Amino acid sequence: MNIQTFSVIGLGSMGLGAALSIKRAGHQVFGADPAAARIALWQEAGGKLADPTRDAPLSDAVISVVLNADQTRQVFFGPDGWARHMRKGATIVSCATVAPAVARELEALAKDYGLYYLDAPISGGAVKAAQGQLSIMASGVPEAFDGAEAALSAMAAVVHRLGDMAGPGSAMKSVNQLLAGVHIAAMAEALGLAVSQGLDLTRVLEVISASAGNSWMFENRAPHVIDADYSPRSSVNIWPKDLGIISDIARDAGLNLPLTKSALDQFRAAAEAGFGHEDDAAVSKIVAQSAGLSLPGDA
Amino acid sequence: MNIQTFSVIGLGSMGLGAALSIKRAGHQVFGADPAAARIALWQEAGGKLADPTRDAPLSDAVISVVLNADQTRQVFFGPDGWARHMRKGATIVSCATVAPAVARELEALAKDYGLYYLDAPISGGAVKAAQGQLSIMASGVPEAFDGAEAALSAMAAVVHRLGDMAGPGSAMKSVNQLLAGVHIAAMAEALGLAVSQGLDLTRVLEVISASAGNSWMFENRAPHVIDADYSPRSSVNIWPKDLGIISDIARDAGLNLPLTKSALDQFRAAAEAGFGHEDDAAVSKIVAQSAGLSLPGDA
Repeated sequence: MNIQTFSVIGLGSMGLGAALSIKRAGHQVFGADPAAARIALWQEAGGKLADPTRDAPLSDAVISVVLNADQTRQVFFGPDGWARHMRKGATIVSCATVAPAVARELEALAKDYGLYYLDAPISGGAVKAAQGQLSIMASGVPEAFDGAEAALSAMAAVVHRLGDMAGPGSAMKSVNQLLAGVHIAAMAEALGLAVSQGLDLTRVLEVISASAGNSWMFENRAPHVIDADYSPRSSVNIWPKDLGIISDIARDAGLNLPLTKSALDQFRAAAEAGFGHEDDAAVSKIVAQSAGLSLPGDA
Repeated sequence: MNIQTFSVIGLGSMGLGAALSIKRAGHQVFGADPAAARIALWQEAGGKLADPTRDAPLSDAVISVVLNADQTRQVFFGPDGWARHMRKGATIVSCATVAPAVARELEALAKDYGLYYLDAPISGGAVKAAQGQLSIMASGVPEAFDGAEAALSAMAAVVHRLGDMAGPGSAMKSVNQLLAGVHIAAMAEALGLAVSQGLDLTRVLEVISASAGNSWMFENRAPHVIDADYSPRSSVNIWPKDLGIISDIARDAGLNLPLTKSALDQFRAAAEAGFGHEDDAAVSKIVAQSAGLSLPGDA
């Protein structure tokens, strides 16, 4: 195997898993995060701390696993950004969910520095990130794919190659997030309806999982409600952000997306009600509370 | 095998398939429908025409596969209804999607005639109906299950037994329809977003089917849009009816279901735009038209 050098910026639940997966594959990996607690986790696992001026020039690719477009822009192109320190011909791999237009803008900025840019949103959650089993929706020039290949193959179970420029990767991720977010909010309504009619939720999960009403999210999230386990595998706060990005894209395209809008409103209501840091299945509480219904775990 | 006698009222795409499946299992089956064209299809397949006064007393169970609560009430308890002609101890099997409260009301009426009542909504579509592979969400007293058993096992791949009174069968079907309807309308928004961003829809289907945004409906209906094939496997007109029933149940329970409401509005808009008799995937046209986008097959 060709041992390469990578830097991972952002060691949250997804970034830490990605960094550890690349390290486990035998590569040299430097990690950076503004939070001391995340750095501590990385160092406990034997990870090396990244310093842009020292490690950027060594890196074949720098992978950002941050929250949004602003953070991505700041990490690479801000006053202390990595782009100016990276060697020409190296690759930026951007994993945040951003609008396709933003991905194209960042690709153009990278080009100004002589860098390749891979538009590479990830999905799969923290557990799959830790296992190196993410799903990556990626687009970019062939050189960007080449530069990122060793890291991607360590991070992901599947890399969807969606085109030879930035944009389609982010667009596909937005399509996925639209569906995923709406499906979670739909699950909340379905479970609320079921409780209002006296159905046993365990039986509902069993029957719906085998019926035309099933979704990946229903099968995955309904058990959280049934077990009253709202420890965040993926938090409510993700959705005002992601569905907000999608609403912006839709507005710019003149598209009317009423279900997306309704789901966005429900997640915002859940965040405002204090469930922002709970598992996103907690959006069910908003529906149940609307009718004074009890979910599992309620007093 | 114990050969039994059944009557099937309503020989639409679901009812005809159910009747043929029961007949194929070796039972004596009488069929009825107000439409001469449906009767003709049934008779071409060797089916016998049902006459309530003659055949109701012979029937171990009478199965209604009609559109809604009003038709079910009319068929059994109207001026020329079957209930008065059925022998005591026989079973009514009601397959329409109705509100749980209506199912309980019909069960009480049946009891007045000395009849058992099985609340037995079906799902799976016309193809599975013809194959005897429906999914049935059923509840009722054990005698109702016993009376219907031979017919159910011929009609269905799976019978979910959901309780010993009418109501839970219809409630579970409503939960399934809420999800199914919302998921189709969500698919419409996802495909609209994808087209607006220049994504290839065949690639979208491939990627989403393997991602967290997947749903049974997405996998099943997106190909209809991609192929521009709107021949009705299940029509747009089903959804204003079914989501309307669900909205009524929710209103009575004091439940706020904003995504269900949005989906209902989208299907109503599709029906009003003249797509009512097309496949329900045609709700995608409403989203695409909102932004002047072309779907496959558009000029």
